[in-house]
Amino acid sequence: MAIKSNRAVRFCFVWLLLLQSGFVFPLPQPCRNLVLYFHDVLYNGFNAHNATSTLVGAPQGANLTLLAGKDNHFGDLAVFDDPITLDNNFQSPPVGRAQGFYFYDMKNTFSSWLGFTFVLNSTDYKGTITFSGADPILTKYRDISVVGGTGDFIMARGIATISTDAYEGDVYFRLRVNITLYECY
Amino acid sequence: MAIKSNRAVRFCFVWLLLLQSGFVFPLPQPCRNLVLYFHDVLYNGFNAHNATSTLVGAPQGANLTLLAGKDNHFGDLAVFDDPITLDNNFQSPPVGRAQGFYFYDMKNTFSSWLGFTFVLNSTDYKGTITFSGADPILTKYRDISVVGGTGDFIMARGIATISTDAYEGDVYFRLRVNITLYECY
Amino acid sequence: MAIKSNRAVRFCFVWLLLLQSGFVFPLPQPCRNLVLYFHDVLYNGFNAHNATSTLVGAPQGANLTLLAGKDNHFGDLAVFDDPITLDNNFQSPPVGRAQGFYFYDMKNTFSSWLGFTFVLNSTDYKGTITFSGADPILTKYRDISVVGGTGDFIMARGIATISTDAYEGDVYFRLRVNITLYECY
Repeated sequence: MAIKSNRAVRFCFVWLLLLQSGFVFPLPQPCRNLVLYFHDVLYNGFNAHNATSTLVGAPQGANLTLLAGKDNHFGDLAVFDDPITLDNNFQSPPVGRAQGFYFYDMKNTFSSWLGFTFVLNSTDYKGTITFSGADPILTKYRDISVVGGTGDFIMARGIATISTDAYEGDVYFRLRVNITLYECY
Repeated sequence: MAIKSNRAVRFCFVWLLLLQSGFVFPLPQPCRNLVLYFHDVLYNGFNAHNATSTLVGAPQGANLTLLAGKDNHFGDLAVFDDPITLDNNFQSPPVGRAQGFYFYDMKNTFSSWLGFTFVLNSTDYKGTITFSGADPILTKYRDISVVGGTGDFIMARGIATISTDAYEGDVYFRLRVNITLYECY
Repeated sequence: MAIKSNRAVRFCFVWLLLLQSGFVFPLPQPCRNLVLYFHDVLYNGFNAHNATSTLVGAPQGANLTLLAGKDNHFGDLAVFDDPITLDNNFQSPPVGRAQGFYFYDMKNTFSSWLGFTFVLNSTDYKGTITFSGADPILTKYRDISVVGGTGDFIMARGIATISTDAYEGDVYFRLRVNITLYECY
């Protein structure tokens, strides 16, 4: 027993020292996983009623009702308030809103950068998760960072794996977001 | 004594395993709490001298000197550099600057999204705290995430509870920010 | 041995209690350090081919091909996709892209606010690091927050010390970024 106890103490000790000493830790097991969908309908000059997002900035020479034609929309900046659903059906009852902004940031391909918050308000979850990071749209699965959370997700940390589930021209797209949290309170 | 020691070792062990195993932890006690105010004076075409923020983006059909009239300012994007004070008096000596951006992101109510940094430079605090998240303006208290910090607030984690302390039309508003940090170095 | 063991157990115990009790911890040793450079070439109306960034928002009365002349570019908002290099040579083979946005946020001096991601794709590193915070340009060294990471930098935490390594008028600037991570997986 004494031997076992001493080994445990030593393990404990070492672990705590590592915590303070710049050690690279193994990734812990996830403590929470959510799969959600959100739906973006970009204003194009004709869909004011249905649109959930709108361009608010664009490079010189472009206008705000059409995505910049050349340079893969480089510089177009949109603000959005999109419904979040549990499945891929736009008509499903929303469990919250995805609110934030994105902009196209590459000239030679389609690529964007995202900053947004999931504002969840359902029987299952009440709280927010905030995300930010680069989104190379044409890649099937791309990871962005969970940078914070409130409510049920207070101080959430982790990543979200985004995939484009569907899109229609430049007006509608649907993103599947697989959220993996590694620190939960 | 041996029994006590073994119990402690076991507790210690269990805790470390939990840390690695996807356990949902109880929220720790806060390690720091600050209450600060910041004051936003939006440029409206007539107050260039006093303004601390300005619109830099707006949806199609809107202009940059007036908040978008319809749709609850949906799409209006402002950049700000606001004084931070210890109390709710605009004339109090500032202890730092709140710098960042916000935009209105809902069509059917007033709601915004914030990304900003408190740059604190007083005898009490030197450093920055960066926040981001959804801000449903009409709710009395709303939580946003602390996403980072530098200086005295290096790697700060926690939340900020924001409330609108006062406002005058579309030109002036004052926010009370109650910052609660759960991880301090 | 028994005495030593008990002291260790007590230390272990105390440390775990501190973790939950709002204690201010000593900063751990860094677990990773990277020094990288990125190069921004702002579109000015004549350099469409070379430009890596472009204005997409500006205050009332300004245009998108010139930085706002008065008020230290206050309100100018740029989107960028800049090459990252290991040294300060613009011609060096890029190890990734710095993608994000910045805006000028002070009327009485040059100051900006940054939100961006290092998308690294080299033999050494594959993954992203996302940064955000205030950037008082005229200060030699300024710290911004690491707010997240993916891939090799999953859940990275720490700070980045930015310095302006070189600039040419309003068109070109090069930033040196010294990234210090305190939590690595």
